[in-house]
Amino acid sequence: MKLTIERAALLKSLAHVQSVVERRNTIPILSNVLLEASDGKLSLTATDMDLTIVDEVEAAVGEPGATTAPAHTFYDIVRKLPDGAQVEVIAGGDASQMTLKAGRSTFTLATLPKEDFPAGGDAELPQAFALHAGELRNLVDRTRFAISTEETRYYLNGIYVHATESDGVPVLRAVATDGHRLARFEMPVPDGAASMPGVIVPRKTVGELRKLIDERDEAIEIALSDTKIRFAFGPTVLTSKLIDGTFPDYERVIPSNNDKMLEVDCKAFAQAVDRVSTISSEKSRAVKMALNSSSMTLSATSPENGSAVEEIEVDYGGEAIEIGFNSRYLLDIAMQIEGDSAVFAMADAASPTIVQDVKDASALYVLMPMRV
Amino acid sequence: MKLTIERAALLKSLAHVQSVVERRNTIPILSNVLLEASDGKLSLTATDMDLTIVDEVEAAVGEPGATTAPAHTFYDIVRKLPDGAQVEVIAGGDASQMTLKAGRSTFTLATLPKEDFPAGGDAELPQAFALHAGELRNLVDRTRFAISTEETRYYLNGIYVHATESDGVPVLRAVATDGHRLARFEMPVPDGAASMPGVIVPRKTVGELRKLIDERDEAIEIALSDTKIRFAFGPTVLTSKLIDGTFPDYERVIPSNNDKMLEVDCKAFAQAVDRVSTISSEKSRAVKMALNSSSMTLSATSPENGSAVEEIEVDYGGEAIEIGFNSRYLLDIAMQIEGDSAVFAMADAASPTIVQDVKDASALYVLMPMRV
Repeated sequence: MKLTIERAALLKSLAHVQSVVERRNTIPILSNVLLEASDGKLSLTATDMDLTIVDEVEAAVGEPGATTAPAHTFYDIVRKLPDGAQVEVIAGGDASQMTLKAGRSTFTLATLPKEDFPAGGDAELPQAFALHAGELRNLVDRTRFAISTEETRYYLNGIYVHATESDGVPVLRAVATDGHRLARFEMPVPDGAASMPGVIVPRKTVGELRKLIDERDEAIEIALSDTKIRFAFGPTVLTSKLIDGTFPDYERVIPSNNDKMLEVDCKAFAQAVDRVSTISSEKSRAVKMALNSSSMTLSATSPENGSAVEEIEVDYGGEAIEIGFNSRYLLDIAMQIEGDSAVFAMADAASPTIVQDVKDASALYVLMPMRV
Repeated sequence: MKLTIERAALLKSLAHVQSVVERRNTIPILSNVLLEASDGKLSLTATDMDLTIVDEVEAAVGEPGATTAPAHTFYDIVRKLPDGAQVEVIAGGDASQMTLKAGRSTFTLATLPKEDFPAGGDAELPQAFALHAGELRNLVDRTRFAISTEETRYYLNGIYVHATESDGVPVLRAVATDGHRLARFEMPVPDGAASMPGVIVPRKTVGELRKLIDERDEAIEIALSDTKIRFAFGPTVLTSKLIDGTFPDYERVIPSNNDKMLEVDCKAFAQAVDRVSTISSEKSRAVKMALNSSSMTLSATSPENGSAVEEIEVDYGGEAIEIGFNSRYLLDIAMQIEGDSAVFAMADAASPTIVQDVKDASALYVLMPMRV
């Protein structure tokens, strides 16, 4: 293998793929990135066995070939090379070493034969549809914060994506929950997705995907089966195993008869919650909302810190109520509401409360109250 | 106690003092800041028993008085208050609570009586002189990176500052070393410092001082005795215990007969060292410099990572030599050299090497080589 490539192009591609590679690996080959050079392009592949990323970049290939090299070290070297450098990559005939040259620098990295690299295998992914990058970003952002981090509840360690109907209209839905709160995002079902199975996309995949589509403005091709999902955009392809489990029947958690409606200025509310929560104990993070017809009092107390009280103007027509929430959860939701106002639909101090953007029904959040 | 104060002024002052307060304290009063209101000003004091900071800020004092309140919580609250807010601070007659009001927010914090706060005590500090903030920043920056972190060698856990002579000229010197490297900064001795005792200023004090003088452009008043040092500028006063120990005779470590002189472009050298060190093992971080009459080859090898070689042009007239250094230490020094070129004065591969800015003799660095 012998090729020359621009440092900037190589760096960008390595940044994408090295991020999938775990820092500690018991299987040495998983620390490596697979490099395959042919026909004016270099293809880079990294995997952790569950999640695989393939990227492709233009290169002046002198001699086609393939090898695998340590992903993080390769990335660090290229990152430190001067801007504008041309990088020459040469892997010897015996393939146990790869040489990198740029300017007056020469690096030699130990390689492993490409045969040792886990074969991706072109999985049969019968279901295919496309989402615009912006829609996919929304879908991820509105839900991922609610993903559970409890490993024992592995079926909650991802975003559940499925096609269903909402008021008779076919929709694509994404749901995440950790048992204390739930986030649901829905959008008109894209062509080809109506018959998709419900799938749980793992947290790490969600994170890598979100980074990759950060500044994209194009359609992302999605293909999936019962066990795998693939996201493709331009030369980049991310393929992931899905979580093999049953997502709970989340519809049961979403109350439908909450009648105490509260409207707040989202920014003022978030700032007040943040201030008041300074006093909440590290552990509970509880803040209390006390509502009467014209105003809301937010408060927190803790034996060690003291107390905090803040009044904010709200629009509330229901009867007086006192209800407590985890301030962290309130702030997570407030951060996802882009409109000026949020509406809370409450039943009582012990039942789940619904929060939504007043002007955007695509996302819905359910919060379990805390006893305060 | 009752006063009103601008949020911005209070925040700035609290930011200064809370930084001295340790996150974990077995003695509760040390988590608190002492607040004393009188005559149009609020004075704030924080201490960890070794280091004490006093700051003063203008306030509309309605009722003079004093109390102590949790420093970090107080700071967090003020930080979260809206820009431009007026903060009202009231401590009750029984002094077990302090109330903070701003806009529609009210906070109540548990206080401890001011009598419990450790008395600073106006120590007798006979030696007094002044340094411009810029000079003091230089003194700190050029030496602090070499301070030892080994707690058992407590007498190396600070910067040794003393007055001495250099080639018959009276100078003020600052020295820090961790046994592997040494940094020495010197400047013309300021009026009043010539007869000062040698003192070791602890690392934490150095760090707090450096933050406080970051954007200052004025003379800093320094006063000291054998056991204490005080830095005063504007309304801010930092008083610290000194390390009670004997700084080793560092002059012995600085070689005087090194004759192999190497001149390098400092920036190019640092970048090359950084690149090559990517390959060094985490543990040793060693890079080798191989010199002959016209060029220098920097290299690193590690069994797990491979090897790196980089050539850079240098000005070297001595005989061929190979010498190894810890790349981290080389980069620390390179970062402190502001000029274009650095000069290395070497003896052999096993003896201490001197590094200096070609155009600025005020700082001198000694590096122990590594076997490579």
